[in-house]
Amino acid sequence: MNIQNKAWRTIWVEQGGHSIGVINQTKLPHEFLTCTLSNYQDVVEAIKTMKVRGAPLIGVAGAYGLMLAIQEDPDDSFLELASSKLLATRPTAVNLLWALTRVLERVKPLSLAERAEAARLEADLIAEEDVAMCEAIGVHGCELIQKLASARPVERQKEPLNLLTHCNAGWLATVDWGTALAPIYKAHRAGVDLHVWVDETRPRNQGASLTAYELSREGIPHTLIVDNAGGYLMQHGYVDAVIVGADRVTRSGDVCNKIGTYLKALAAQDNDLPFYVAIPSSTIDWSMSDGVREIPIEIRSPREITHIDGCLLESAINTRLATIQISPSGTKGFNPAFDITPSRLVSALITERGVTSSREEGLKKLFPDLSNGQHP
Amino acid sequence: MNIQNKAWRTIWVEQGGHSIGVINQTKLPHEFLTCTLSNYQDVVEAIKTMKVRGAPLIGVAGAYGLMLAIQEDPDDSFLELASSKLLATRPTAVNLLWALTRVLERVKPLSLAERAEAARLEADLIAEEDVAMCEAIGVHGCELIQKLASARPVERQKEPLNLLTHCNAGWLATVDWGTALAPIYKAHRAGVDLHVWVDETRPRNQGASLTAYELSREGIPHTLIVDNAGGYLMQHGYVDAVIVGADRVTRSGDVCNKIGTYLKALAAQDNDLPFYVAIPSSTIDWSMSDGVREIPIEIRSPREITHIDGCLLESAINTRLATIQISPSGTKGFNPAFDITPSRLVSALITERGVTSSREEGLKKLFPDLSNGQHP
Repeated sequence: MNIQNKAWRTIWVEQGGHSIGVINQTKLPHEFLTCTLSNYQDVVEAIKTMKVRGAPLIGVAGAYGLMLAIQEDPDDSFLELASSKLLATRPTAVNLLWALTRVLERVKPLSLAERAEAARLEADLIAEEDVAMCEAIGVHGCELIQKLASARPVERQKEPLNLLTHCNAGWLATVDWGTALAPIYKAHRAGVDLHVWVDETRPRNQGASLTAYELSREGIPHTLIVDNAGGYLMQHGYVDAVIVGADRVTRSGDVCNKIGTYLKALAAQDNDLPFYVAIPSSTIDWSMSDGVREIPIEIRSPREITHIDGCLLESAINTRLATIQISPSGTKGFNPAFDITPSRLVSALITERGVTSSREEGLKKLFPDLSNGQHP
Repeated sequence: MNIQNKAWRTIWVEQGGHSIGVINQTKLPHEFLTCTLSNYQDVVEAIKTMKVRGAPLIGVAGAYGLMLAIQEDPDDSFLELASSKLLATRPTAVNLLWALTRVLERVKPLSLAERAEAARLEADLIAEEDVAMCEAIGVHGCELIQKLASARPVERQKEPLNLLTHCNAGWLATVDWGTALAPIYKAHRAGVDLHVWVDETRPRNQGASLTAYELSREGIPHTLIVDNAGGYLMQHGYVDAVIVGADRVTRSGDVCNKIGTYLKALAAQDNDLPFYVAIPSSTIDWSMSDGVREIPIEIRSPREITHIDGCLLESAINTRLATIQISPSGTKGFNPAFDITPSRLVSALITERGVTSSREEGLKKLFPDLSNGQHP
């Protein structure tokens, strides 16, 4: 996507493949900084600290991390070590496991001398496929949005279509385009009059910082709300549909996404509104069925709750990034990063192969090649 | 309640009734400051800026504001002006209208010379009644909590009873005791082993700042969570019941409370958990039936979303209050302050006269003297 007329991706190869560059997402929207990751430990640190985040992007970053590890030492034992360290950075998104497995399976049959080149090609392929999958999600989701817009009562069709999204599932969460935002970008470019309600997404405020940033750069009308406000908006007819991404989807269609997603799905159901989840197939975990019982939920530091980062306005011209504490000193916090939206609350899944029901039959029909034999 | 071994209320009369004192709640938990309100305009400003907040406390502050106005000029026209200015500060809580009406009805039949003294007595009475109502809510709610605790499976009874609350409905929201927290204080003092999940309550963070502050001063185990986390906690069995206050309850039991309450009620229902609302009868609006259509919802400044106040840690010993911006400059926000939880999602109302169903029949039976003839 474009930032000040320059096309950017979130991740790229530097120095002929001996390092990778990423946008440091912890400083957005206040500062646009990039950083260079020169070895797999740098990638581990970048994922842990959320310089790089978003399930699809974590997968791609993991693949490049393994590429850097192989350059360091192509031996099996080192690969296993690097892979396990990369995998342990964040437990919930399945894309990381998927991408690491792809690279490992690609290089393991090869001689040590061939591995670095093969890993580079495989990581590049994963990145390119991510772009293609996200763009395809955009195309299919755009059709859905166009149908939604024209299915409204005639008097409502003069108003923008109101979509609500949670967290950031835009191009910053992938290599390009995004998942939940890809249909919005495509629909906007196709001339659909739309407006996006942007959930702040506590505790890390990815909506307020990243989604608002993305949408403003694309010129898409949007309004920031607190996570608490979605129910009110739906009660009063200000939302036409909800669209979110996911970090893992079970074969039965249970959706694991950023904490708070489940609450929006409940409100959508209570107000008869469609709730869509946009995912590349790399987000589907065919080995799992029951999201609440089976998907590991990352518990992050309570400091993310008790302290908030932002831009301190010291004077009209002098600003700097700073951290404030919002609770009494010593207050304990508990910070689960994801929750599960049961498939019964999901109206449809938007994938790179099209839109399907969030039921096992629907997923299997769309992905017979992926679902076969990967679970009992 | 006690702060450093001194008993405090949130509001008190100073200078023989010629001014009132309040705790400035905008500086908590970082600074404990009080301020003196010397005329009704000071009270208007204190309510608007939320130095004084919480539906019951706003009612009491309004009554004292009218007392100060009468001291200034007891004439009917000035009273009507002052009353309308006080009422316009915050439109959603009905306690303010209720308290202003009580003072007006008390003084209007009197001569101008008698009004100041009568207003003082009526405002004092409203404050004392608020304390008594809240303590009675505490007693009835405590019984409910004790029943909940002992109704759990035997193996769960060794663990603390887990209650979740949203916003601040503690003693800071009333004159003393609180509404939703009064049962918790009573149960804790009665020896019930309990733990409170404290919703941060964006955008003004009354949970993180006020509820966490109150509970820590009373020594009640509690954990701060983001508003998004309640669904996860309920999905995983970490919540036994939800208990909140309200700003207005219709005669049919629809509950208007801090934005986000509705989402917690939906999650409680989806997980078969009780959802309780604790209110004094002054919070019931007998003239309204349909909460979503009839209750006016206050829309506050978007700056409350885009900017957050807290304590800036400049060094280990040097701290100061500061404001940070979390979204891109120029981001639009929309900030409704309350939402409606339909009565169908409310398990019971805890009032000063006992616990009742959130249906019109239940409320009428408990308050036949208040409900009669006040609606068609």
